[in-house]
Amino acid sequence: MSQPRQVVLAYSGGLDTSFCIKHLSLEKGYEVHALTVNTGGFSPEELKALEQKALDLGAASYRAVDALPAYYQQCIRYLIFGNVLRNNTYPLSVSAERMFQALETVKYANEIGAQAVAHGSTGAGNDQVRFDLVFEILGNDLEIITPIRDLQLSRQAEIEFLEKHGVNWPWEKAQYSINQGIWGTSVGGAETLTSHQALPEQAYPSQLTAEGPLDLTLHFEKGELTGINGAKASHPVAAIQALQEIAAPFAIGRDTHVGDTIIGIKGRVGFEAAAPLLIIKAHHLLEKHTLTKWQQYWKEQLANWYGMLLHEGQLLEPVMRNIERFLEDTQSTVTGKVFLRLHPYRFELLGIESGYDLMNSGFGQYGEMNKAWSGQDVKGFTKILSNALKIQHFVSQKNEQDD
Amino acid sequence: MSQPRQVVLAYSGGLDTSFCIKHLSLEKGYEVHALTVNTGGFSPEELKALEQKALDLGAASYRAVDALPAYYQQCIRYLIFGNVLRNNTYPLSVSAERMFQALETVKYANEIGAQAVAHGSTGAGNDQVRFDLVFEILGNDLEIITPIRDLQLSRQAEIEFLEKHGVNWPWEKAQYSINQGIWGTSVGGAETLTSHQALPEQAYPSQLTAEGPLDLTLHFEKGELTGINGAKASHPVAAIQALQEIAAPFAIGRDTHVGDTIIGIKGRVGFEAAAPLLIIKAHHLLEKHTLTKWQQYWKEQLANWYGMLLHEGQLLEPVMRNIERFLEDTQSTVTGKVFLRLHPYRFELLGIESGYDLMNSGFGQYGEMNKAWSGQDVKGFTKILSNALKIQHFVSQKNEQDD
Amino acid sequence: MSQPRQVVLAYSGGLDTSFCIKHLSLEKGYEVHALTVNTGGFSPEELKALEQKALDLGAASYRAVDALPAYYQQCIRYLIFGNVLRNNTYPLSVSAERMFQALETVKYANEIGAQAVAHGSTGAGNDQVRFDLVFEILGNDLEIITPIRDLQLSRQAEIEFLEKHGVNWPWEKAQYSINQGIWGTSVGGAETLTSHQALPEQAYPSQLTAEGPLDLTLHFEKGELTGINGAKASHPVAAIQALQEIAAPFAIGRDTHVGDTIIGIKGRVGFEAAAPLLIIKAHHLLEKHTLTKWQQYWKEQLANWYGMLLHEGQLLEPVMRNIERFLEDTQSTVTGKVFLRLHPYRFELLGIESGYDLMNSGFGQYGEMNKAWSGQDVKGFTKILSNALKIQHFVSQKNEQDD
Amino acid sequence: MSQPRQVVLAYSGGLDTSFCIKHLSLEKGYEVHALTVNTGGFSPEELKALEQKALDLGAASYRAVDALPAYYQQCIRYLIFGNVLRNNTYPLSVSAERMFQALETVKYANEIGAQAVAHGSTGAGNDQVRFDLVFEILGNDLEIITPIRDLQLSRQAEIEFLEKHGVNWPWEKAQYSINQGIWGTSVGGAETLTSHQALPEQAYPSQLTAEGPLDLTLHFEKGELTGINGAKASHPVAAIQALQEIAAPFAIGRDTHVGDTIIGIKGRVGFEAAAPLLIIKAHHLLEKHTLTKWQQYWKEQLANWYGMLLHEGQLLEPVMRNIERFLEDTQSTVTGKVFLRLHPYRFELLGIESGYDLMNSGFGQYGEMNKAWSGQDVKGFTKILSNALKIQHFVSQKNEQDD
Repeated sequence: MSQPRQVVLAYSGGLDTSFCIKHLSLEKGYEVHALTVNTGGFSPEELKALEQKALDLGAASYRAVDALPAYYQQCIRYLIFGNVLRNNTYPLSVSAERMFQALETVKYANEIGAQAVAHGSTGAGNDQVRFDLVFEILGNDLEIITPIRDLQLSRQAEIEFLEKHGVNWPWEKAQYSINQGIWGTSVGGAETLTSHQALPEQAYPSQLTAEGPLDLTLHFEKGELTGINGAKASHPVAAIQALQEIAAPFAIGRDTHVGDTIIGIKGRVGFEAAAPLLIIKAHHLLEKHTLTKWQQYWKEQLANWYGMLLHEGQLLEPVMRNIERFLEDTQSTVTGKVFLRLHPYRFELLGIESGYDLMNSGFGQYGEMNKAWSGQDVKGFTKILSNALKIQHFVSQKNEQDD
Repeated sequence: MSQPRQVVLAYSGGLDTSFCIKHLSLEKGYEVHALTVNTGGFSPEELKALEQKALDLGAASYRAVDALPAYYQQCIRYLIFGNVLRNNTYPLSVSAERMFQALETVKYANEIGAQAVAHGSTGAGNDQVRFDLVFEILGNDLEIITPIRDLQLSRQAEIEFLEKHGVNWPWEKAQYSINQGIWGTSVGGAETLTSHQALPEQAYPSQLTAEGPLDLTLHFEKGELTGINGAKASHPVAAIQALQEIAAPFAIGRDTHVGDTIIGIKGRVGFEAAAPLLIIKAHHLLEKHTLTKWQQYWKEQLANWYGMLLHEGQLLEPVMRNIERFLEDTQSTVTGKVFLRLHPYRFELLGIESGYDLMNSGFGQYGEMNKAWSGQDVKGFTKILSNALKIQHFVSQKNEQDD
Repeated sequence: MSQPRQVVLAYSGGLDTSFCIKHLSLEKGYEVHALTVNTGGFSPEELKALEQKALDLGAASYRAVDALPAYYQQCIRYLIFGNVLRNNTYPLSVSAERMFQALETVKYANEIGAQAVAHGSTGAGNDQVRFDLVFEILGNDLEIITPIRDLQLSRQAEIEFLEKHGVNWPWEKAQYSINQGIWGTSVGGAETLTSHQALPEQAYPSQLTAEGPLDLTLHFEKGELTGINGAKASHPVAAIQALQEIAAPFAIGRDTHVGDTIIGIKGRVGFEAAAPLLIIKAHHLLEKHTLTKWQQYWKEQLANWYGMLLHEGQLLEPVMRNIERFLEDTQSTVTGKVFLRLHPYRFELLGIESGYDLMNSGFGQYGEMNKAWSGQDVKGFTKILSNALKIQHFVSQKNEQDD
Repeated sequence: MSQPRQVVLAYSGGLDTSFCIKHLSLEKGYEVHALTVNTGGFSPEELKALEQKALDLGAASYRAVDALPAYYQQCIRYLIFGNVLRNNTYPLSVSAERMFQALETVKYANEIGAQAVAHGSTGAGNDQVRFDLVFEILGNDLEIITPIRDLQLSRQAEIEFLEKHGVNWPWEKAQYSINQGIWGTSVGGAETLTSHQALPEQAYPSQLTAEGPLDLTLHFEKGELTGINGAKASHPVAAIQALQEIAAPFAIGRDTHVGDTIIGIKGRVGFEAAAPLLIIKAHHLLEKHTLTKWQQYWKEQLANWYGMLLHEGQLLEPVMRNIERFLEDTQSTVTGKVFLRLHPYRFELLGIESGYDLMNSGFGQYGEMNKAWSGQDVKGFTKILSNALKIQHFVSQKNEQDD
């Protein structure tokens, strides 16, 4: 008797990937190895429960990987360095973590010598492309299995299939589909399928419970969040998590992202991301004080591109490494404190303090008298600065007169 | 006896330009023609009062120019088309209008055959450069006079000079210096000279008086604001003013801009700009639904540059005309309604409705099953899409093994 | 008996599309309407011969479309305005014309009410994608048929199939595959499949016959080539053709393009494009004299992107229209003469003459004494210009000392 | 008696800087320390002669600094990594070396505790700005002296002044002013002051003496030229010099640069730069084979900017360091051989050979049958790729019908 083929399945515990375990093991004869890649959305208890469910469904083995350190080190820090908000709004909460789930899945498949990898994404969104691309690029000989996309079953059909095979779990469809990770929580529902409706208050997992105002100090070292209110964090990941604890009760960082999917259609999704928004806006303010104009200009160019390629599943493109070197190099002076004030649903950036502040450095002050240069100097400056346009205007007028 | 030289002075009615009238006419022997260029900051009554003051100070003539139509047509609409927020924050409230004040000043000087133009800016900020550049470029033979920058007098010295010459008006220094125009109001004070302090609540001219929430509909046609809540405005300028009336009581659109001045130092200024912020954010959302990904990408590139050059006094650079053609051409589909909700100090974008909406167009829906393409199509897509990186990964690994 | 389905085939007269006529009509039962879209590669005699061949092969009808006017007006002129050379080398000789062949094919299919369109491209290059994209976007309900890609027949198998069906024409495989159009001729062969070999002299259709040197004057009006050596052309297309006549005997404009295909692999192709290279380089020189620094900067950005999207079959992307408006607007001053000298295998740009020349305009001259500004002005200029970096250096040193 | 103030003068041995020594020491009472910063233009014998001349003119001391290693390491290698040709033409021969002359001058002044620095540039070009900026930024308390710019003496007046003070050397004005360095030689003359004339053959220092064709192999390691024709060079600087020896007799790399000066006027200058052109073009070809599409795209963006800022004297801008990190990081795969053929006045790039070649890597071949993907895959690819424009076209048509 031949060995069954082994498949590593990216398993989240939802209906779709639960269906996949049963379908692949029972109907397709695969030995299914369920893998949950934790990018900040699962507690130890939840992972324990996931393991039990996977094995009950017929998985040959279950494993949970803590991808947070790699996710932070290889991705989130660059999103902070780059102040990355897709379409000026969305911190890439889902896009970024999906890549690391795909990376860990193919890595694990190679480790255990599996012949296949599987994901449970549908055929209508970005996630399928992210998984496919990573599997194609890094999983040279691995078969890629995508039951949900291929079978196009309805939710009800999946439930019936599971029930037929003795799985009578409650699969109540939440009114809103939630995807949670350290860099934000996405929220989809009936409203986000329209162009004109906003998500209602109750759709958001983090409800308003704080009153405020609450003043906060964020500490950055070379662009990384290293502490809050004078207390140094053990690791930037811990600082992000601590900030999320403080800020989530203010219902901060909610918005709706409207964007172009990789497959060419427009998509809309709600999200809440208190800590990511606070960090990015605070970090950006600190940079306005500590970087030159052209550093800021080129950072924005490259970081927008970085966000776009990441969003589109192209984290493995070598230019991403090159951009990371650029971004990292710009952060050498992005050290200091940022002062914020939290209110229900909003926050204010109060100011910064930094040894690298290029404002108030002892030179001339904006709008005040100064001694670093004279009015005569500015006259020379503007005279020379106007040369090109003065000539252009002169030539232009001469031609108009000639006509 | 020789004719006195004529100078056109950009006159705002403040201490500095009041000093200039007296100084230029009395001490320098110029015939001073005071010109107030209204970009939305002055009521007819205020202009009347300014006229009286100018003549009392010794101006040979006074004129007020309504620059709003030109300012809107040649500038504000492009700032809307481009969603221009300098450093992702500031709608260029002051920068933009200063250019039109300079343009009107030099134009008037040419009209009346004056031999000189004058402005009252100090030697420490951006405004002097904006005035100087326009005067240099368009005012070929005009002398440029800048008494405040040249004399570097203290406020007190200016007052004493005026008093010595019989002008005993109250020149109480407001705690905050305010510059008001249709595209926003800037606020400077002791706090904005530091890096760490925010402006206090009372520094802002528009205080919170509304409670909310208040739902609003903005109507856009080819990128221009043409109506509010179903009522068509007589002109986009009127629509902006009406929106400002509605929104200002919510104390919306306040922030602090930190940026690089043209003369190389960092500067910080507070502002409130309710209507500009609402319009730009609503317009941007409408574009997310009605423009393609690459239209949005290149609009952002060009619009940021447009904002930067405008901020730096380079409105006359021919590339600005080229960018305007690009921006205008992108707006042919930016027509529709945007739904907003105002709250004290903040607002929400609820959604849009447009015949040009590229979402929900009858094709496949994001995250839902669809019939426009199959899972098989996406497999082919991702297979081909992965080619470049698959090869790159293959070659890269081969080289690592060879080492 | 049911009507046969009608298909419009983009027909070039080569082995592949000849096979398609026979295959589609005989084996697939289609009524084949052969369409040759002439983008400058065919003489009237050649088109006459193509018609006969198509009908002999079993086409139900034959039509030749002169796409040159549209091709010039909607594409080539923008390639000139943008000085477009892909990867700094290749004038997009094939990429550009392929789009117009696809556009005309789908347009004709819609006109005659055909149910299908077909092209004869293989599955290994860019052309299939260009045809597919245009067919998909504009041919809503049209079936897309691609026999060569689907069947993957060898050349020999195609010949045998034709012979079996009575077509015993000589199909001698040329050593080099040539694609000729008004904007250049591509040359592929054994060498271009390697990375290290150049095409031999004899691979190029235009052989060296002139001796030179020959001096030439090109006349441009608003960016378009309107005459040569003082003689005005009837149309820019005629000017391009006349220049090609003059320049081809010098064996100018040969090179090898190495680039990334749309499907992710690298490709290499030789080309000769005497007139396109002369025009682009001459036009670019004229722009260096007549456009400002930032106009040149942004033109290059947008034109490179334009060339990339065109190359990748995305001519229908709306941003292309926006870019065209930008490019067109920049050309208002690109009028004048450019002087060149042709030698065997190379040419020199001697200089230009233009009423819009921003050099030698009566203002200060580079490297010479001048009266438009003083040394004192430049001192002020550089003092202010150094402010930002002076502060940055000061702050940076202070921090190093503190460490 | 008080100590004379010490000035370090950037000394090239020409009439202008010779005048400066005599003028500053004799008329202004400075103790003049002449410094020649060698960036590849001087032989040891020439430096010896310069020393004698400087001392004869009254310099208190003379020093020659070999700036080549720093110049290569901190600048030229990035110009190669970035394939930098200003305005697509000029390798920045003069611009780049001027910066290092300024840097060494201010460094030396700080070392010896001088109170002033001086340069001999006129008030009409770029060089004055380059010197001024570096002196301003790095020479905090140093006086900046610019006699030639300030006095605006004619050539004849300078000669007469020197003769009056006993210096009766021959100062024959060469018909063409030449500036020579390792990265190219600039040539200015009567023709370059016009827009329409090219430099005559005899204006170029390197005359044609070779016949050719001559085949050459250049070896690159991580983007740096490390050898020629199989022989490893001791240092990239030695490789550049050796290549120049080989290539100069072919009169290769001549052209005329037309560009925007820092002070706003257009300038024109001829140059010859055989080795720089060969290296940049060969390096660029190697990159086309070994970098991905987006690596090439962003390299070009950043490198053009790098070239622009360098040209404009902004080498000290921190973004330049960030760009250097990016460029350096892209070069990890730019290793291999490039094959060239030299002819009189021109050269051909024949091809490359590299272990990092992304073409011919065992995957599908451009234009040939392949097994890495199927025609079906490409159909899926183009179907999905067309989605966005298909929707856009659909919506666009719907709106036209509604109108």
